[in-house]
Amino acid sequence: MKKENVSEAVIRRLPRYYRYLDELYDKGVVRISSSALGDRMGITASQIRQDLSCFGEFGQQGYGYNIQELRREVGHILGVDKTHSLIVVGVGNLGRALLKNFHFANMGFTVEAAFDVDLRLVGTTIKGIPIYELRQLEAYTHRKVPDVAVLTVPQSVAQETADRLIACGIRGIWNFTNVELTAEGEDVQFENVHFADSLLTLNYRITRTLAQDT
Amino acid sequence: MKKENVSEAVIRRLPRYYRYLDELYDKGVVRISSSALGDRMGITASQIRQDLSCFGEFGQQGYGYNIQELRREVGHILGVDKTHSLIVVGVGNLGRALLKNFHFANMGFTVEAAFDVDLRLVGTTIKGIPIYELRQLEAYTHRKVPDVAVLTVPQSVAQETADRLIACGIRGIWNFTNVELTAEGEDVQFENVHFADSLLTLNYRITRTLAQDT
Repeated sequence: MKKENVSEAVIRRLPRYYRYLDELYDKGVVRISSSALGDRMGITASQIRQDLSCFGEFGQQGYGYNIQELRREVGHILGVDKTHSLIVVGVGNLGRALLKNFHFANMGFTVEAAFDVDLRLVGTTIKGIPIYELRQLEAYTHRKVPDVAVLTVPQSVAQETADRLIACGIRGIWNFTNVELTAEGEDVQFENVHFADSLLTLNYRITRTLAQDT
Repeated sequence: MKKENVSEAVIRRLPRYYRYLDELYDKGVVRISSSALGDRMGITASQIRQDLSCFGEFGQQGYGYNIQELRREVGHILGVDKTHSLIVVGVGNLGRALLKNFHFANMGFTVEAAFDVDLRLVGTTIKGIPIYELRQLEAYTHRKVPDVAVLTVPQSVAQETADRLIACGIRGIWNFTNVELTAEGEDVQFENVHFADSLLTLNYRITRTLAQDT
């Protein structure tokens, strides 16, 4: 297994492999060739072979990949088989949507608590997850530091809330605020979900398409 | 201006340029050098010059970029200065979060209507946007086809709802369902927001970081 120096582009494709393999596994498919997998994913068979070769030897010439095995291996590389703890900070519509509908457990995460400033929410639960007052964050994390915080607070308080989370010792922030967060020399992993970038990319493509049509 | 054959990677970076330029513009900054912009964005000055050269001549040697001008140009390339119409299909927590908090207008979109199957929502409005019954979709789009649909329905009905939207003539789908949609030979642009891929990427990185710490 050669796991060092894997490029960012390969890392970005791994979750997609996992998603497709998971879907095939759920359907009960046992084997798939790299070309059939590539057709489904819209990439070439050689790209797949090259990507997976970063992590070891998978599949057999002429037999394709064993889906259960490859899914387990890719899941292992992604860390899905280790359980990480997670808190949700900000229980507005987006925080609530994630708490209610997102399958954190399938991704290797246990949601332990949620935090908000709205006292009407404090003391209630969503899917069994307790909502605490944001003021209690430091006291809560003092007992045990969660691995990841989902940041779904308003933009105006995004950086200050991130600063508090980092001061509490949290080392992974899943950032939905559309603010570029900084971490003053601390070793923190930010993963940003930029809805705006995604919609602008779509805008670019439809603007081109519509221009061609006329 | 040479606008043809711009690589997917450059297109993916354009929204980020726009986001940074917009922020600088809001702060009243007039000029910025490619190296200062690169420092903020975490990319090299030469990458910036190379990316922007795909679209024409910007900036002046020794003077940097005029922010207002470059923001307008990048916005133009992204189609932000043309208004496209948009509908939101599915008014659950996520649909509601987008309707309430996302600045569609800043991205060049006018939200015209939302649709849901929940009769308790039908007839109400969110930020002035009317919510219609999903059954009315065909009648609604018969008058005028919106440019883009935001798809925030449950996974189980994602493809069938996309099929209906495509049959109505919609050519851009902003897909939040985590289902890989297909469009049977139709020229449709899908832009997928895969929350799961994003969280798995974070999981990969924190798993590596935590392993190094121990």
